[in-house]
Amino acid sequence: MEYETPLFFRVMKYASSVDRDVIDMVSGNPDWEPPQALRDGLSEYADLEPAAFQYPPSDGLLELRKEIAARRGVDVEQVVVTNGAGEANYLAMARALERDRGEDVILTDPVYPYYPGKTTMLGGTQRFVATDDEGQLDPADVRAAASEETAAIVVNSPNNPTGAVYSAETVRELVAIAEEYDALLISDEVYDNFDLSGEFASALSVDSNHRIVTNAFSKSLAITGFRVGYAIFPPELVENARSRHMLVNVAGSRPSQYAVLNALRETEPDYYERNRELLRERVDAFTDALEEAGAEYTTPKGAFYVMARFEGYPGTLENVFELIDEAGVAGMPGEAFGDSRTEWLRFALVTPRVEEAAERLATRFV
Amino acid sequence: MEYETPLFFRVMKYASSVDRDVIDMVSGNPDWEPPQALRDGLSEYADLEPAAFQYPPSDGLLELRKEIAARRGVDVEQVVVTNGAGEANYLAMARALERDRGEDVILTDPVYPYYPGKTTMLGGTQRFVATDDEGQLDPADVRAAASEETAAIVVNSPNNPTGAVYSAETVRELVAIAEEYDALLISDEVYDNFDLSGEFASALSVDSNHRIVTNAFSKSLAITGFRVGYAIFPPELVENARSRHMLVNVAGSRPSQYAVLNALRETEPDYYERNRELLRERVDAFTDALEEAGAEYTTPKGAFYVMARFEGYPGTLENVFELIDEAGVAGMPGEAFGDSRTEWLRFALVTPRVEEAAERLATRFV
Repeated sequence: MEYETPLFFRVMKYASSVDRDVIDMVSGNPDWEPPQALRDGLSEYADLEPAAFQYPPSDGLLELRKEIAARRGVDVEQVVVTNGAGEANYLAMARALERDRGEDVILTDPVYPYYPGKTTMLGGTQRFVATDDEGQLDPADVRAAASEETAAIVVNSPNNPTGAVYSAETVRELVAIAEEYDALLISDEVYDNFDLSGEFASALSVDSNHRIVTNAFSKSLAITGFRVGYAIFPPELVENARSRHMLVNVAGSRPSQYAVLNALRETEPDYYERNRELLRERVDAFTDALEEAGAEYTTPKGAFYVMARFEGYPGTLENVFELIDEAGVAGMPGEAFGDSRTEWLRFALVTPRVEEAAERLATRFV
Repeated sequence: MEYETPLFFRVMKYASSVDRDVIDMVSGNPDWEPPQALRDGLSEYADLEPAAFQYPPSDGLLELRKEIAARRGVDVEQVVVTNGAGEANYLAMARALERDRGEDVILTDPVYPYYPGKTTMLGGTQRFVATDDEGQLDPADVRAAASEETAAIVVNSPNNPTGAVYSAETVRELVAIAEEYDALLISDEVYDNFDLSGEFASALSVDSNHRIVTNAFSKSLAITGFRVGYAIFPPELVENARSRHMLVNVAGSRPSQYAVLNALRETEPDYYERNRELLRERVDAFTDALEEAGAEYTTPKGAFYVMARFEGYPGTLENVFELIDEAGVAGMPGEAFGDSRTEWLRFALVTPRVEEAAERLATRFV
């Protein structure tokens, strides 16, 4: 069995292997500071008694689950702390496919490449629904693709790679379609903290036992390497997900969970607002420079990414490697996100050098 | 789909919920100190620049993989760093079942309960081979159970729960059987550092492309909550395992990996020897006290566990709860480890109060 392995790590590896200065815009790795309380939590943990170094509860430190439940307005029993949003999505998709209500997984095109990879690995069948040029998903298209064979509809808002933010109306409709076909809506909201539009709506806002919400602290606390995420399940679906989590990972990393809990408790809203503001500034700087360079580009309503298109220069892996070598800018090939964006490149705004990057690209394409 | 969920967390939860002093001997959670260099590594990490808080390579920090490869005498490309031995065993078993060389997974009885749970979750079929009273596995019995349908043989030496350590001859034979049936021997060696017999043989000592070795630093560094383990695959099997790891977890916890790397580099052999000696003393103290109490018991050659049997008191979950309530000693029910030890209880020697625990048990059964 061959899976489709997402290319992120491969591109990052290439970018760090070449013998020149490269502006790394490959992956959604924040370059800004984590909260001080995150660092403090980890330092504090390092000095705790040995008992604190042993297995946390399999589904996560209870205080962390309570903190999440309170923030999200759900029962603590619905919360499973996972190894990042990656495991949360894996558990959610496995849960949907195990219900024996069909094998189809409806995904968007463009798509975050881990979703089709997980679908294949879990024995499901991918069904792609195209979004519009701005990445908006029309629920009518999802309904047209849905059937008795639909196990899950997997969406991501704010969206990677398009930057789209789905409206409350769209989210309501998606939940309704999941209910109609006894499927599950899996709503990956890992960029919820980076909604730049004010229009973000969580799937939790729609009361239903046909939706699973996944999230992580990777982006909001700037700690993709800590691997602390969570999934919120309908009460009747949580038990088996918990079992799978235990059988796959036993438990998550306790130092990571401890540090995250401290950060959640001690970090002021100002921290989050500052990072959103930083992102807004970078979106402006990068898109302004792309505009001057005469490129086509997207303006994200949320998340970290700008897609750009240069005339006669398709978004292939080969071209991405060439841009690393020749321009010193590393992005991701549009083809990695599905058939609809093969002409595009995706750039993550996780460097203070976004303007310089756009200028380098402009120079390359003059 | 219902999995068999291992009971460890359930029993631990019960033990900590009762309103009395309970000596916790449920799970293999060391109560001794992690190495100072582990704590130092974590403290140091807490002050690193933001880039160090982002995704490590999916298959683990390169320096950590190199350290593991050097210690185990394998090529670094064969090493995948995992979320503890739990994920390592999951990846190994998934890999074996995906080869489409059969669906049977040969397990021992008694068995570490995560293995049958993983087998079911992965769609395999459990085939149990009984060990003798001392937990020794006769390769002839494994050969009798093996067939063209055998995907994997999963063993654990030093063994949880029996304390058996398999001889080099046994390990060689198990690899030979795997080769004969084009199956994979999965050798979980997480207690290798706690071989009290001097007879432990790693499956790596047998050159073969039909064996996967799994391990973790959970026990050797006394950090079950850090979740850093690894699997060593034959070169031709590693790629798909790496993909599955990426699709399930993206990557492991970087602070945990960083701290483990520092501990491996800086910790003297003396640390490991001291903990083995501590375990030896506890085995003696606990079994002496059980002897005086007139109980039947096992004397482990390795790992952390003693099994004990009290006349007319079978190893049921109900009795385990009763012993928590009435005697203030928490163990695991023998029935959790398979059909052959239903009369037994398992006690983990992870408390300085082993003698007191045995006395409490003696009082209960007078």
